[in-house]
Amino acid sequence: MNKLHPTDIQQQLVNVNIAAERGDESTIDQMLSSLSDGDIARLLILSPPKMRQVTWKFVDNNRRSSLLSLLNDEVQADLLEDLEASEVAEITADMEADDVADILQQLPDRLSDEVLQSMDTARRQRAQAMLDYSEDTAGGLMNTDIITVRKPLSVEVVQRYLRLLGDTLPVNTDHLIVVDRTQEFIGVLPITKILSSPLTTTVENLMDVQTPSIPATLPAKEVAQLFEVNNLISAPVVNEDNILLGRITIDDVVDVIREDAEHPFLGLVGMSGDEDVFSSVRKAAPKRLFWLGINLLTAFVAVAAIQLFEAALERFVVLAILMPVVASMGGIAGSQTITIVIRGIAQGNVGHGNISWLVGREILMGLINGFFWALVIASIVMVWYSDLTLAIIIAAAMMLGLVIAACVGVLLPIALEKVKIDPALAGGVLLTTVTDVAGFMSFLGLATLFYSP
Amino acid sequence: MNKLHPTDIQQQLVNVNIAAERGDESTIDQMLSSLSDGDIARLLILSPPKMRQVTWKFVDNNRRSSLLSLLNDEVQADLLEDLEASEVAEITADMEADDVADILQQLPDRLSDEVLQSMDTARRQRAQAMLDYSEDTAGGLMNTDIITVRKPLSVEVVQRYLRLLGDTLPVNTDHLIVVDRTQEFIGVLPITKILSSPLTTTVENLMDVQTPSIPATLPAKEVAQLFEVNNLISAPVVNEDNILLGRITIDDVVDVIREDAEHPFLGLVGMSGDEDVFSSVRKAAPKRLFWLGINLLTAFVAVAAIQLFEAALERFVVLAILMPVVASMGGIAGSQTITIVIRGIAQGNVGHGNISWLVGREILMGLINGFFWALVIASIVMVWYSDLTLAIIIAAAMMLGLVIAACVGVLLPIALEKVKIDPALAGGVLLTTVTDVAGFMSFLGLATLFYSP
Repeated sequence: MNKLHPTDIQQQLVNVNIAAERGDESTIDQMLSSLSDGDIARLLILSPPKMRQVTWKFVDNNRRSSLLSLLNDEVQADLLEDLEASEVAEITADMEADDVADILQQLPDRLSDEVLQSMDTARRQRAQAMLDYSEDTAGGLMNTDIITVRKPLSVEVVQRYLRLLGDTLPVNTDHLIVVDRTQEFIGVLPITKILSSPLTTTVENLMDVQTPSIPATLPAKEVAQLFEVNNLISAPVVNEDNILLGRITIDDVVDVIREDAEHPFLGLVGMSGDEDVFSSVRKAAPKRLFWLGINLLTAFVAVAAIQLFEAALERFVVLAILMPVVASMGGIAGSQTITIVIRGIAQGNVGHGNISWLVGREILMGLINGFFWALVIASIVMVWYSDLTLAIIIAAAMMLGLVIAACVGVLLPIALEKVKIDPALAGGVLLTTVTDVAGFMSFLGLATLFYSP
Repeated sequence: MNKLHPTDIQQQLVNVNIAAERGDESTIDQMLSSLSDGDIARLLILSPPKMRQVTWKFVDNNRRSSLLSLLNDEVQADLLEDLEASEVAEITADMEADDVADILQQLPDRLSDEVLQSMDTARRQRAQAMLDYSEDTAGGLMNTDIITVRKPLSVEVVQRYLRLLGDTLPVNTDHLIVVDRTQEFIGVLPITKILSSPLTTTVENLMDVQTPSIPATLPAKEVAQLFEVNNLISAPVVNEDNILLGRITIDDVVDVIREDAEHPFLGLVGMSGDEDVFSSVRKAAPKRLFWLGINLLTAFVAVAAIQLFEAALERFVVLAILMPVVASMGGIAGSQTITIVIRGIAQGNVGHGNISWLVGREILMGLINGFFWALVIASIVMVWYSDLTLAIIIAAAMMLGLVIAACVGVLLPIALEKVKIDPALAGGVLLTTVTDVAGFMSFLGLATLFYSP
C-alpha cells in the first residue's frame, strides 16, 4: 500500500519536477488524480515555493477545499496569496465553519471581509462566531457539527432520530451531547451506549456526566493536555454560562500536541513551530537575521569579559588556546539542564511543588560532572603542558563553570516564566551568554590570580 | 473544574510533601481518593523519587492497575521495581493485553516470566503474542479488543449482536471491522453508519474499504504519521497475510506523536524522549557524563585548531579576544539549519526530492546573513579598534563561517542518515565541532595571512 511509505512522496516530488520542466501537463494531471488528498497535501508541504504553485495550479477547486484543511497555516497562506475573493469563496463553500475560519485568518483583512460578504447569512454568522475566538484557544479549535439530545428521550427515539439524519451524521461522532432546553451542557452520551443498551432505557440513565466540558477560552495548549491526560477522543466546548458551543475532536488536537511538543526546542534556536520548512529565502531570512543579531550582541558581552584579562592573555598564550574548552563544557551542560526544564515548564510539569528538588538535583549533578571532568581535563593538561598550576586552574574553572551552568539552567527559565517572557525564546541565548561569560571569567580570572607575581 | 487547571497539581505536590513530613497518613489517603486517576498519574510523574514511592504506597492495587497505563515507561519501571511477582500479577489481572505487555517489558526477565506463569492460558497467550512485537511497532501499540462482523449481515442483525455484547463493547469503538471466515481483513464499518442506515442494508453495502490496514511490523513513528496525515481515530492492524490482529486507537498514538516530535531536539543535547524529568541523580548522571565527555573530546579538536595559530595569537592578543565571536555566530546559524533539517528528516519531509533546493536556500541565506553581519561586525571593530585590516579579516571570516555552517547544517544530518547514524544524536556535537573549527581557523588563518610580514 502506497500510503504506508512516506518516502514515495520524495519520488513524486522528483516526478512533478521533471514533468514541470518538460511542460508535460498531462503527466502532472494524471499523477495528482492518482494520489490521495493526504499525499497531495504532503506534496504541497514538501515543495519549494515555485513547485508548490505549479502543483496547486493543477488542483481543481473541489479538491482544493479538502486539501486546505490538511495544510498548516503558513502553507495555506502561501497558496491563498494569489487568489481572488470569489475563488476563496468557492473553495470554502462546502467547508466546516471552523476550517473556513482558519482559512480566513490567513487572508489579508480586505480579502477575508469580501469572502464573508459572499456567504449566506447563516454561514457568515457561524464563521464570524469562530473568528471571535483566537486560533489558539478551545473556541478556535472546535467544530460546530454537533448532535444534541435531551435527558428524557429513550434509546429507541434517539435511534430513530439518528436514522433520520442519515448521511448528515458528522464523521467522528463518538458521542451525542446532552443539553437542556436552553442548550446548557449536561453530559455526553457515548454512541456505543446507544448501540449496546436496551431500547427503553432513557438518555438520563446512560449519559456520562464525568467527561469535562471545555471553556471556549481555554488555551489550545491546555486543551491538548486535557486530551492527553484523560485519553479523550472528543470533548464538548461551552461558553462562560455553560451553554454548548461545539466540540473538539482529537484530530484537531494532534497538531497542537506536535506544535506544543516542538515549541520549547525550536524556540531555543529562535524558530517557531508553524515554520514552513520550504518557505522562500525572502520569508525565512528576516527571522534568522534577527536571531543572529541577538547572538552577536551577546557574543560581545563575552568579548568584553575576555578583554578584562587582556594582560594575562598577552603573557600566556596557552590561556587563549584552552579558553574555549571551559566555556563549551558549560554551554553543553547548561543546554541539557535548560532543555529539560523548559520542556517541563511547557508541559506544566515543573512548578513550585517540585522546583527546589530539581534545583538541588541539577547542582548535585553539576558537582559530580564537574569533579569527574575536572580530573580528566587536569590530567590532559598535565600530559600536554606539564604545568601543575595550569592543570589546577582549568580543573577549578571547569567545576565552577558546570555548577554555574546547572544553576542558571534551572533558575533562568523559571525566572523568565515568572516575568511572563517565553523561556524557550529568550532562554537559550541568555544561557549561552551566561555560560560563556562564566567559563571565560572563571578560567581567565583564576589564571590571573594564580599567575600574578 | 479542577481538571482544567494543571497548575493545581503543583499545590497537591506541596500538600503531599507536607503531610508526608508530618507522617499524616490520613490526609494523604483523603487527598488521593478525591483526585481523578489522570491527576494522580500526573502527581506520580511530577514527584521526585522518594515522594513518588510514598504516594504509590497509598494507592490500592485496584487503582494501581488503572494508573499504570497512564504512566510513561520510566516511571512505570521505577514504581514496579520493588514489587513481588504476585503483586504485579494482581495489579495486571484486569488490564488489556497490550497494557500488560507494556508493563511486562519494564520488568526484569525473571519477574516477567513469573507474572506470565501466574496468568491463565488464554491471557498468557495473548500477552505473549503482544510481547512478540517490539513496543515501537504497530503490533506493540495495538489493542486486541476488536468487534468483527461479516459482509452479508444486515444492519438489524449487527444491532442485535451489539446489544447482546452490552457493556463489554470496548470504549472508543468507532467502527467494527469486517473480515471473512479466515479472519482476513476486508474493510471497516463506521458505528455512525450502523446508526444512520436503514435496518435492511447489508454490511457489504455500508463498509469502507479505503481505510488503510496497518502491518503489525510498521514502525510506531510511521503509524503516527499515517494517523496525522489521514486524520484517523482508529485503524485495524494486520499480519503479513492480511489477517486481522487488533486495532490501534489515536490515544495510543498521541504519546508516539509527542515523543516523535521531541526526539530530534532532545537528541541534539544528548537526551532521549522518554526521559523521566524527576529521575534520581544515580539514574540521570551517567547519560550526562557521557555526553559531556564527547563534548570535551570535540572541544580539544577546536583547541588543536587554535594551537596552529599560536604565533599569531602571541603577537596580537586582540585575536584571542575576538576569536569566540565568529565561532559563536557560526554555531548559532548552523544550529538553526540543522534543527530544521533534522526535524524535516524525522518527519520524512526532507529527502532526495527536495534536498538540493534546501541546500541552495540555506547557502543563499548563509551568504545574505553573512554579508549583513559582516558589515555590522566590521563597523563595530573599526569603531572599537580603528584597525581596517582587522575589520576586513573578521568580516571575511564571518562570511566564510556562516556559509560553512549552512552547508554543514544541511549536509551533515543527511549524510549521517545515509550511513544509518541518528542525526539527532550525533548531529549537534559534530556540527559545533565543525563550526568552531571553521570559525577559529578562518579568523586566525586570515589574520595570519594578512598580518604576516
